[in-house]
Amino acid sequence: MDFRIEKDTMGEVKVPVNAYYGAQTQRSIDNFRIAQDINRMPKEIIRAFAYLKKAAAFTNQEAGVLPEEKAKLIGQACDEILDGKLDNEFPLVVWQTGSGTQSNMNVNEVVAYRAHVINGGQLSDKDKFVHPNDDVNKSQSSNDTFPTAMHIAAYKILLETTIPGIKKLRDTLHAKAVKFKNVVKIGRTHFMDATPLTLGQEISGYVSQLDHGLRAINNTLAHLSELALGGTAVGTGINTPKGYSENVAKKIAELTGLPFVTAENKFESLAAHDAIVEAHGALKTVAVSLMKIANDIRMLSSGPRSGIGEIHIPDNEPGSSIMPGKVNPTQCEALTMIAAQVLGNDVAINIGGANGHFELNVFKPVMIYNFLHSARLIGDGCVSFNDKCAEGIEPIEENIRKHVENSLMLVTSLNTKIGYYKAAEIAQKAHKEGTTLKEMAVKLGYVTPEEFDQWVVPGNMVGDINL
Amino acid sequence: MDFRIEKDTMGEVKVPVNAYYGAQTQRSIDNFRIAQDINRMPKEIIRAFAYLKKAAAFTNQEAGVLPEEKAKLIGQACDEILDGKLDNEFPLVVWQTGSGTQSNMNVNEVVAYRAHVINGGQLSDKDKFVHPNDDVNKSQSSNDTFPTAMHIAAYKILLETTIPGIKKLRDTLHAKAVKFKNVVKIGRTHFMDATPLTLGQEISGYVSQLDHGLRAINNTLAHLSELALGGTAVGTGINTPKGYSENVAKKIAELTGLPFVTAENKFESLAAHDAIVEAHGALKTVAVSLMKIANDIRMLSSGPRSGIGEIHIPDNEPGSSIMPGKVNPTQCEALTMIAAQVLGNDVAINIGGANGHFELNVFKPVMIYNFLHSARLIGDGCVSFNDKCAEGIEPIEENIRKHVENSLMLVTSLNTKIGYYKAAEIAQKAHKEGTTLKEMAVKLGYVTPEEFDQWVVPGNMVGDINL
Amino acid sequence: MDFRIEKDTMGEVKVPVNAYYGAQTQRSIDNFRIAQDINRMPKEIIRAFAYLKKAAAFTNQEAGVLPEEKAKLIGQACDEILDGKLDNEFPLVVWQTGSGTQSNMNVNEVVAYRAHVINGGQLSDKDKFVHPNDDVNKSQSSNDTFPTAMHIAAYKILLETTIPGIKKLRDTLHAKAVKFKNVVKIGRTHFMDATPLTLGQEISGYVSQLDHGLRAINNTLAHLSELALGGTAVGTGINTPKGYSENVAKKIAELTGLPFVTAENKFESLAAHDAIVEAHGALKTVAVSLMKIANDIRMLSSGPRSGIGEIHIPDNEPGSSIMPGKVNPTQCEALTMIAAQVLGNDVAINIGGANGHFELNVFKPVMIYNFLHSARLIGDGCVSFNDKCAEGIEPIEENIRKHVENSLMLVTSLNTKIGYYKAAEIAQKAHKEGTTLKEMAVKLGYVTPEEFDQWVVPGNMVGDINL
Amino acid sequence: MDFRIEKDTMGEVKVPVNAYYGAQTQRSIDNFRIAQDINRMPKEIIRAFAYLKKAAAFTNQEAGVLPEEKAKLIGQACDEILDGKLDNEFPLVVWQTGSGTQSNMNVNEVVAYRAHVINGGQLSDKDKFVHPNDDVNKSQSSNDTFPTAMHIAAYKILLETTIPGIKKLRDTLHAKAVKFKNVVKIGRTHFMDATPLTLGQEISGYVSQLDHGLRAINNTLAHLSELALGGTAVGTGINTPKGYSENVAKKIAELTGLPFVTAENKFESLAAHDAIVEAHGALKTVAVSLMKIANDIRMLSSGPRSGIGEIHIPDNEPGSSIMPGKVNPTQCEALTMIAAQVLGNDVAINIGGANGHFELNVFKPVMIYNFLHSARLIGDGCVSFNDKCAEGIEPIEENIRKHVENSLMLVTSLNTKIGYYKAAEIAQKAHKEGTTLKEMAVKLGYVTPEEFDQWVVPGNMVGDINL
Repeated sequence: MDFRIEKDTMGEVKVPVNAYYGAQTQRSIDNFRIAQDINRMPKEIIRAFAYLKKAAAFTNQEAGVLPEEKAKLIGQACDEILDGKLDNEFPLVVWQTGSGTQSNMNVNEVVAYRAHVINGGQLSDKDKFVHPNDDVNKSQSSNDTFPTAMHIAAYKILLETTIPGIKKLRDTLHAKAVKFKNVVKIGRTHFMDATPLTLGQEISGYVSQLDHGLRAINNTLAHLSELALGGTAVGTGINTPKGYSENVAKKIAELTGLPFVTAENKFESLAAHDAIVEAHGALKTVAVSLMKIANDIRMLSSGPRSGIGEIHIPDNEPGSSIMPGKVNPTQCEALTMIAAQVLGNDVAINIGGANGHFELNVFKPVMIYNFLHSARLIGDGCVSFNDKCAEGIEPIEENIRKHVENSLMLVTSLNTKIGYYKAAEIAQKAHKEGTTLKEMAVKLGYVTPEEFDQWVVPGNMVGDINL
Repeated sequence: MDFRIEKDTMGEVKVPVNAYYGAQTQRSIDNFRIAQDINRMPKEIIRAFAYLKKAAAFTNQEAGVLPEEKAKLIGQACDEILDGKLDNEFPLVVWQTGSGTQSNMNVNEVVAYRAHVINGGQLSDKDKFVHPNDDVNKSQSSNDTFPTAMHIAAYKILLETTIPGIKKLRDTLHAKAVKFKNVVKIGRTHFMDATPLTLGQEISGYVSQLDHGLRAINNTLAHLSELALGGTAVGTGINTPKGYSENVAKKIAELTGLPFVTAENKFESLAAHDAIVEAHGALKTVAVSLMKIANDIRMLSSGPRSGIGEIHIPDNEPGSSIMPGKVNPTQCEALTMIAAQVLGNDVAINIGGANGHFELNVFKPVMIYNFLHSARLIGDGCVSFNDKCAEGIEPIEENIRKHVENSLMLVTSLNTKIGYYKAAEIAQKAHKEGTTLKEMAVKLGYVTPEEFDQWVVPGNMVGDINL
Repeated sequence: MDFRIEKDTMGEVKVPVNAYYGAQTQRSIDNFRIAQDINRMPKEIIRAFAYLKKAAAFTNQEAGVLPEEKAKLIGQACDEILDGKLDNEFPLVVWQTGSGTQSNMNVNEVVAYRAHVINGGQLSDKDKFVHPNDDVNKSQSSNDTFPTAMHIAAYKILLETTIPGIKKLRDTLHAKAVKFKNVVKIGRTHFMDATPLTLGQEISGYVSQLDHGLRAINNTLAHLSELALGGTAVGTGINTPKGYSENVAKKIAELTGLPFVTAENKFESLAAHDAIVEAHGALKTVAVSLMKIANDIRMLSSGPRSGIGEIHIPDNEPGSSIMPGKVNPTQCEALTMIAAQVLGNDVAINIGGANGHFELNVFKPVMIYNFLHSARLIGDGCVSFNDKCAEGIEPIEENIRKHVENSLMLVTSLNTKIGYYKAAEIAQKAHKEGTTLKEMAVKLGYVTPEEFDQWVVPGNMVGDINL
Repeated sequence: MDFRIEKDTMGEVKVPVNAYYGAQTQRSIDNFRIAQDINRMPKEIIRAFAYLKKAAAFTNQEAGVLPEEKAKLIGQACDEILDGKLDNEFPLVVWQTGSGTQSNMNVNEVVAYRAHVINGGQLSDKDKFVHPNDDVNKSQSSNDTFPTAMHIAAYKILLETTIPGIKKLRDTLHAKAVKFKNVVKIGRTHFMDATPLTLGQEISGYVSQLDHGLRAINNTLAHLSELALGGTAVGTGINTPKGYSENVAKKIAELTGLPFVTAENKFESLAAHDAIVEAHGALKTVAVSLMKIANDIRMLSSGPRSGIGEIHIPDNEPGSSIMPGKVNPTQCEALTMIAAQVLGNDVAINIGGANGHFELNVFKPVMIYNFLHSARLIGDGCVSFNDKCAEGIEPIEENIRKHVENSLMLVTSLNTKIGYYKAAEIAQKAHKEGTTLKEMAVKLGYVTPEEFDQWVVPGNMVGDINL
C-alpha cells in the first residue's frame, strides 16, 4: 500500500495515501488490534457525529468563532457522511479509549480532510484548509461529543427501527386478537389444563405487553433527549462561546427533526450514562415480553401430531437436514435468541454504566455498542417475526375444540354452585377413572345432567370479550 | 409438638396445634424444605395480601356474595396481619409453587381460622365458620391474587422506603453542591488530571443522576398501579360478580391510600410481570448511579496521605483489625455492594419475567423476592450512606488547592489563544521537564508571563455556576 | 434494655448488658441499619470463622506467641460457636464494610468475651482476660481472615450440601434412565415431532448433564482449597510468626477434615476472589442444567388431557385455589426459580469480583453471601425435587405409544433407502392430507407396504441402548 | 443481479447466478433480515464445519456409504473453505433457526456445489454431482453437526487465541514482578493507605490471578473435547453406519490436531450446551481478573500530578481532543470494556443454555456467537494490552518513595511491641496533628527514637519476597 505522512501532537504517522483520515485514526488502528474484522464502531454513531459536527460548525459560525467558509465546507463533508459516501473512512473498533476520543478524532480528521479536498486541496498537502482540532472540533471535546452522539444515535434508532418494529408486530397481533376473539380454547397454567379463554384473549395479553413496552420506551426518551454538547472537557463548558450549549442543541434538533435539548447538568452527562442504562432497561423489558410471546407461539404451534397443535404458523423453509418434511418455528427461535442477547447486553451496559469515575465515564463505546445492538435486534427481529410468522397465525380449530371439550377444569364453573371441595372431588375422580366431568358429576350425585349442561358451558366461562 | 388434624381436598394433614394455618400451608412446609431458615416469603407480600383479602371481602359483601358477618371477620383478621400480630403464621418460603398458590392459601387459611377464633370458635373445630377457599378466597384465584399482592407490595415499598431514601440522599448532596459551589478543584477524566471544576459542580452531577433516577422510578409506577385482581384463574374473571375488578381495585386504593386501578388486560397481568421487570429496570439504573457516586466519594477521600485526599468523610468505626488507626470508607463499600446485588437481582427478575408460559407466569415468588430485596436495599442503603457519610462530607482545602495549582491541563485555556498544537507542546514539555506550565509557556515563547497570568485562571475555567 | 460500656480505639460504646459482643459490633449495628431483619451475615461464615480462630490460636501457641491458657479458652469458645450455642451473638448484616472487618471483629469480640467468662470473668469486667485484637486476632487481619472464612464456608457447603444434593438427584435420574431404557417414545426438536428415542435415553441426557456439572464443581475445588490466612494486612504476612501460613492451613485442614492448603500467592488471595467467581461459574452451569431438566419434566407431564402427558409426576398438594382438582408441577417451578436466582447471583458475584482495587477486594460479604445462597439453593432444591418429584416419575405408556405411532418423522428411516427428497415428499403430503406415512408412501409408489413395515420400525430407530 | 434457479424440498428459489450456495441459504437470507450487515455467523463456525464435513466424508467413505470420488471432492471443497477462499459464500446471520440448520445447509450447499464445479460441472446444472443432503450431510443432522462445530470452534479459539493471549500478558507481568520485586511501596486497602509491599509483590498477585484463570480454562477443555457428531437427529444416531461416532471424532482429531473424542452421551450433546456454559464460566472469571488488573494499573498510573502516580505506562496517542498534551490509560479502558462485554455475554449464554427443550437446545447460534466473541476479545485484548501497555510499565520511584515514607500505617509494626491500642493512638494523633509517626510515637512516650527506627522499617515489613 502507498502511504502519506500525517502528523499530530505526538509526531508523524504513515497513513494510506488515499485515506481521508489522519494520524490519530491510524494510531488507533495500530494500537487496538482487537476484533477489527467484527467490531467496528457502529455506523449509527458515525452518522450521529455527522449531525453533531455540522451543527457545531454552524453554531460556531453564528457565534463568530468559525468563518462561514469553513462552516460550509464542514457541513458539506458531514452531508457526505450522512449519505453513506465515506463509510470506509471509519475503521476504528469499539475497543479503543473509553471516551471514544479516537472515533471523535476519526470524524474530525475525515471531515477536515474531506472539506479540504472539497475546497480544492489535496490529501497530500501538509497543511489543510480545515483543521481537525481547531476547526471541526471547535467548542467541543470528545468528552461531550461522544455522549452527544450516543444520545442522537440511541434516540434515532429507537424512533426509526425499534419502535416501528414493535408497533408493526403489535398491530398484527392486535388484528389477530380481534379476529380470533370468539375462538374458545383451553387455558393453561403451570403447563396444565385450566379454565377456557378465547384465542383472541390470549393474544390480547401479548398486545398489552407490547403496548406497555412501547410506553416504557417512550418514558425513557426524555432523558435521552438531553445532550451533553457544550460541557466540553469536564462539564464546565470551557472554550465554548456564550449560549453555545442551547444553540447547538437547537441546531441538532433542527437537523435531525428530533426534540433534543441541552442537558441541564453537563457534569452528569459526561460522567454517567444513566439515560442509556435506563432506556436499555425498557429494551430489556421488551425482550422479556418477546421471549414470552415467541415461546407461547412455538408451543401452541407444536406438533404437528404429538404436541399442542392449536395454531398454525407459516412453513418458511425445510426444517431439518435429516428429517424430511420437518418444519420448525424458526422465527420464534430467532426472536428468543434475540431476547437472550438483549438480556446479556443489558448486563454489559449496567457494568459500563456503573464504572464511570470522577468527571468521565470511560465505558462509552461498549455501552452504545450494546445499546444499538439491542435496539436493532428488537426492531429487525419484530419485523421479521411479524412478516414471516405472526401474520400467518391461524387457529387449528379441530384441535382447539377437542382440547376444550376434554378439559377437567371446566369444573371450576361449579365452584359457586356446589363449592370448591365437591367440585374438586368430581375432577379428581374423573381424572383417575378417565371419565368425562359430566359422567362423574352426575355419578357422584352432585348435579343433574341438566344442571351440568346449563352450568358448564365453555363459552360462558370466558368473561367479557372486548378487544 | 402437639398437632391437630386439618384437611384439604387431598386429605388429612397434621398441623401444629396452635398454628392458625392449615393443611395446605403444612403441605408446603413439608414439600419445600429449601432454605427455610433464610428465605421466607417477604413480609411485604403477606401485608399486601392482608389489604387484598380485606378489600375482596368487602367487595364481595357489597356484591351480595359474602355475608356481612363473614366480611367483617375477615377484615378483622386482616387488620391483625397488618398490625404484625400474626407474623409467625407465615412460614412458607419463596421456593414453592411459582404461582404463589401456597402463600395465597397460607393467607386464606390464617385469615379464615383466625376469623373463626375471633368469632368464638376453636382451632380444633372440624368445621370453621369462615372457609379458606369458599369465603376468604371468594372471587379470587392465586393466579390473580399473587400478582396483585406483588404490585401492592412493590408500589408501597417504592413509595415508603426506596424513594424517600433516595430523596434524602439527593437532598443532602444538593445541599453539599450548593455549599461547595465555589471550591475550585481539579477535574479528572480517565483518572488523569483534567481542567478544573468546582466541588459543588462535581457533586451536582450526582444530584442530577438521582433526580433522573427518581423520575425513572416514577415513570414505572403507572404500570405497577394496575392490579390483576378480578382476572381469577386465567384472566377471564370466571366466578366473579359483575363490576368486581373495578370495585376491588378501588377498595384496595382506599385501604392503601395509593392510586391502584384494575388492569385493562388481565391476561397480561397473570401471564407476565413486565411491570416488575420494567420497574426494576429503574431500580438497576439507580444502582448504577449509586455505584458511581459511592466510588467517587471513596476515591476522593482516599489517603490520608498517599491518595487523592480532597474530601473528608466521617470516621465511623475502627477500620482494621491489624492496622491501628486506620479508617475506611465503609459506607461507600456497603452501598457499592448493594449496587452489585441489585444488578444481580435484575438478572434473576429478567429470567423469571421471560419464562412465563401460556396463561401464567410461574416465577412470581422469585421475581417479587428480588424486587423487594432491591427496593429495600436501595432505600435503607441510601439512608445509611446519607446519615453516616454524605452528611459529613467536607473539602480538604489544602489538598484541593495544591492539586489544581499543579495541573498541566490548565493549558487548555490557551487553545483559543495559541491553538491546540502549541498548547500541547507546552504541556508535554512541562511534564517531561517537571516545570510549571507558565515557565514552559514563556520559555517556548508562545506567551508572555502577563498573558499567561491573564489567560490561565482556574477560577475562570469553571463556567457558569448555577446550582 | 440494660447496657454496659465497652470501648475500642475510638472510644466508649453502650452494648446490651448480656451480649457477648463488644464495641465494634455495636458500632456496626448502629452504622449499618440496612435490611437487618433479613440479611444477617450467613451462619456458614460465622462457623468458618470459629474453625479459623481456633486454628489460629493453637498455631500461635505452638509458635510461642500465645499462652496455652488463652489458646485453650479461645478453642473452647470457638467450639461453642460451632455447636450453635452463640448464634444470637452475630447480628451484623452483609451490608457492612466490604472487607468484612466488622464480622471479623464480631467474632473476635464474642470469642474473647466468652473465653473471659469461661475463665470465670464477668462481661462487665473492664479488662477481659482474652483480648479481641491482641489475642483472638493475633497474627491475623480481617483482610486475610475473611477470605479464609469465605473459602472454608464455600468448600464446606459444596461438599456437605450442594454436591450431595446433586448426586442424590443424579442417582435417582440414572435409576429412572435404566428402568425406562426400552420405553420407545417420540423425540422432539424445536418443540416439533422428531425421530424416536427411549424415555431412558432422554433421561440419560439429564444424568450426563449432572455428571458433567459435578465434574465442573470438582474442578474448582483446588482453587477454593487455597487459604489467604497468613497474608495479614496486605498479603506480606506482617506480624506473623515464621511458618505461620503453612501451619495454620494445616490446622484448619485437620479441624475441618478438608484438604486446605496455604495459598501460594497471598496478594491475590486478599485482592481478588476469583476462586469464588470460578466456583460459582460451575454452580451457574448446574443451574442451567437444572432449568433444562425441570422444564422438560414439567412439559412432559403437562396435561392431564390437553398437554403432552407422557410422564406422571407425584401430586403433592392441591394446585389451585380456584380450579378444583388441579395438580401442578410445583417442584419443577421451585427448581426453575432457584435456577433464575443462581443466574442472578452469578452476576452479583462477577461485579463484586471485578471491582477489587489494589491490595484488597472490598466486595467480600456480597460475594460470599450470594455464593452460599446459590450453593444452598441448589443443594436443598435438588433434594426437594428428588424426593417430591423425580423419584415418582413414571411413564404414561398409552400416550407415549400413541405419539410415537402417529409421528411423521418416522419417515427419516427412509432417507437411506429412497433419499431425503422423496422422503420429504411423503411426510409433507401425509401431513397435508392427514394420512399415515405408510398410506402416503405406498400411494406415491416409493415403497411397497412390505418394505415400509420392514424399514420403518420405531424400535429400530433408537440406536444402541447402553445406559 | 442475475439469478439461477435452485430448488429444495419446498420448491424453487432464485439464487444469485454465481453464488455457490443454493435454495436453503437463499431462503434464510430472505426470511431473516435481521442485522445482516453486522451479525454474520462467525467465520470460526464456518471453518469448524469445513473440518467436520471433510471428516464426515472420509468416515462415510471408509464405512462404505460414500464413493471415494465424492469424498475426495467434498474434501477439496472443504480445504478451500479452510483456506478462506469461499468466505463470501456464507452470508447467513446468527439470528436464524436456533439449531443452526440453515448454516449447516449453507455449508452443505456450498461444499456440494463447489465440489460439483471442481468436478467440471456448472453451477447452472440442474442436477449436481454431489448432493447437499444425501452426500455432504450423509450420516449427519444439523442437530449433531452444529454442536460439533461449536465445540471445534470453541476449542480452537481457546487454544489459538485466548490462552496464548493471556499467557503473553501473564509472562510480561511475571517479568515485571521479578524486576520490581524490591521496589518497596505503600499498600492500599479500601483505597486507603496500608502497610507496605513491593511493586513486584503487587504485580505477582495479577500473575497468580492469570495463572489460576488459565487453569480454570484448561479445566473446561475436557467437556469441550466431546463431540456430538454421530447423534444425528435426536441423539440416537439414526442413519449412521456402525462405529461412525468414534471414527468421525478420531478423524476430526486428526484434521485439527486437537484431542477430540466422541461424547459419551449424545442426548446431552444435542439438548444442552453446558460445556459452552461451563467454559464461558472460566472466561468470565478471566474477565473479572482483567478488570481488576486494568483498573489497578490505570489508578497506579493516574496523575500525572494530582493522582497516585506510582507507575508510568506508555503514551500511545494524544488523549484529548480539547486538553492538549493529555495522555490517558487507553489500553486499560479497552480491556475493562472487554471485561464488561464478556460479563454481558455470559448472561446471554446462560439464558440460551438454560432454555433448551426436550431433545434439542435451539439457542445454539446465540451461544456460540457470544462464546467466540468473548474468547476473541480476551485473546486480542490481552495481546493489545500487553504490547501497548504492560510491557512499558515502569515505577516512578520518586513518588513511590514519598508515599511509603509518609504512611501512617507503618505503625502496624508496633502492634507486636506495644499493642494494637497504643499503636492506634499514635496513628490517630499523628493524623490529626499532621506529624510524622515517629514524632508522635516519641511524644506519647511509647517508644524511644532508637526503638522506632529499629522497629519501623518499611523494607522489613514486606515479608519474604520469592517471586
